[in-house]
Amino acid sequence: MNISEIKIAVDAMGGDNAPTEIIKGVVEFTNKHNIKVILVGKADLIYSQLLHHDFSQDKIDVVDAPEIISNDDSPTEAIKTKKQSSMVIGLHMLKEKTVDAFISAGNTGALVAGGTLIVGRIKGVKRPALGAIFPTLKGFSLLIDCGANVDAKPIYLKQFAQMGSIYFKNVVGVKEPRVGLVNIGTEDKKGNELVRESYKLLKNSDLNFTGNLEARNIFKGEADIIVCDAFVGNIILKHTEGLVKDIFGLIKKELNSSILSKIGGLFAIRAFKNIKKVFDYSEYGGAPLLGLESLVVKAHGSSKSSDIQAALNQCVKFIEQDIANEIAEKMEKDEEEEKGEQCEANQ
Amino acid sequence: MNISEIKIAVDAMGGDNAPTEIIKGVVEFTNKHNIKVILVGKADLIYSQLLHHDFSQDKIDVVDAPEIISNDDSPTEAIKTKKQSSMVIGLHMLKEKTVDAFISAGNTGALVAGGTLIVGRIKGVKRPALGAIFPTLKGFSLLIDCGANVDAKPIYLKQFAQMGSIYFKNVVGVKEPRVGLVNIGTEDKKGNELVRESYKLLKNSDLNFTGNLEARNIFKGEADIIVCDAFVGNIILKHTEGLVKDIFGLIKKELNSSILSKIGGLFAIRAFKNIKKVFDYSEYGGAPLLGLESLVVKAHGSSKSSDIQAALNQCVKFIEQDIANEIAEKMEKDEEEEKGEQCEANQ
Repeated sequence: MNISEIKIAVDAMGGDNAPTEIIKGVVEFTNKHNIKVILVGKADLIYSQLLHHDFSQDKIDVVDAPEIISNDDSPTEAIKTKKQSSMVIGLHMLKEKTVDAFISAGNTGALVAGGTLIVGRIKGVKRPALGAIFPTLKGFSLLIDCGANVDAKPIYLKQFAQMGSIYFKNVVGVKEPRVGLVNIGTEDKKGNELVRESYKLLKNSDLNFTGNLEARNIFKGEADIIVCDAFVGNIILKHTEGLVKDIFGLIKKELNSSILSKIGGLFAIRAFKNIKKVFDYSEYGGAPLLGLESLVVKAHGSSKSSDIQAALNQCVKFIEQDIANEIAEKMEKDEEEEKGEQCEANQ
Repeated sequence: MNISEIKIAVDAMGGDNAPTEIIKGVVEFTNKHNIKVILVGKADLIYSQLLHHDFSQDKIDVVDAPEIISNDDSPTEAIKTKKQSSMVIGLHMLKEKTVDAFISAGNTGALVAGGTLIVGRIKGVKRPALGAIFPTLKGFSLLIDCGANVDAKPIYLKQFAQMGSIYFKNVVGVKEPRVGLVNIGTEDKKGNELVRESYKLLKNSDLNFTGNLEARNIFKGEADIIVCDAFVGNIILKHTEGLVKDIFGLIKKELNSSILSKIGGLFAIRAFKNIKKVFDYSEYGGAPLLGLESLVVKAHGSSKSSDIQAALNQCVKFIEQDIANEIAEKMEKDEEEEKGEQCEANQ
């Protein structure tokens, strides 16, 4: 697909800083790139904010959506009842191929439910999964699933690893991403029922499975693809965010506690900036919901304009590399092999 | 119980630094306190090391155990086959009331299996659980379960909260510990099946249940008792340990990267020491295995002599407060209430 033909819909009403930061991000992105973005949301509000910006009229469209799905809404119910919400309208545009991708910083559960119900899964994919870029000492990894399936089955986890590997290979350029299964020990018999069974499936797959990934080694970057169910994934992601933020808060407080330490902090300011950079998620954009027919990206709830730009950049790469198609091919191949094995077993 | 009558058995062969650090810790502890400690392990090895110490002979006994359960051993199998191991012999001494508590820094799974099989559960307790002291911005909390039940049920989690509350009240002195259920959101319908059901049980209990505890708020100290299954608990504990260690490693590396930042680091050395102190687990000793007839404490695998001393101190407090008895009374009361409700339902 020619890059200038790409169209991306953005939920103008989702997230803590909507619509201001969302609109700002879209304006800045379209001023730099020759890509069309459609802002979906309360049209009067969007237009009134666009007035304050210097933007390319031929690259931004607005589609009116009078309703909003909030974070307090029950996901599936909201998707079924709020037909005029920015999220539902945006997802329908994606389903009808009016756009090539849809980005939202809104209600995660609703986006997952809506993505599945409206856009639809790739044939063979049991459950779509959210893959978040996770910073590590070696750069970054993909944490999958971090928000879609809190009750998972072994086959889901195997597919998360497959979809995550395809994504990572194409977007990050790592040929054979190392797949690690989050567990409480390295031995194959460790863990709960879910991971013990998942271990067997991963071990027998053609993935570059490096075995169980102990939690103490996640941040060390021992795996490119960090595989777990969404309950564990969300706990890891959110606990890391909270802990890192609080540690930096502690450092700031301690450095301000005496004149000596204040001076020390000033001398070491560059060192601290470098450390903070390691944990800066924003340049990686949002989390793709892998396994859907078309691309849905969940941007962080607290997204600023820079995050929205990063998410838009991510969409372009995803579409250019035709990742959804590669996932579909992999799933088809897997189904055929499975059928073959069943036939052999029946003979 | 009079403090001078307390006897504690310590597994001399468990952990990365056994037996040297274990023996050192026991010697230093008994030199300070009028409490008897029995070292269980390879007697010749223990005696040869004791020779290098100035210790009170009337306060240290040695019980020979020729076998060792290693971390690679399969837990239940090791307990059943290695009858002459320090762990099995120590647990039998506890069962027979020769000692009042048993501490081991060895194989966690084996200690949990052995504690359950040999020492036995308190009547009414479905599963014993490991409660680890977890440092937070407000001091510390109890993370339970962090190592015993990777596949849990809602009733287990309720009991973990009950046992943890009794422990925290007695050992830390917090009257009504705030109980938080680890979850991916604060709303009561959030989470996987296990936590959604556990939420209901906790809400209907007489505990000081403060609701779902989002992972981003764990380190903030929003709950005294952090309740989860052992899979999630172990991931939180180990990920925190790894992340904190790696962040301090990053800071050290960055501060050493230039002369300016080196100077900064020197000026701020006190500030860093204060921050590091927040994460120092060692003063809290080990993790009690709550729900057993007598006290079993799991010391950290990398325990140094100071950790062993802290674990011994913890045992004294536990025994003095008669925590096992309070748990037993609570379980009995709960069973009676349950029976009462069933009778009402049948009428």
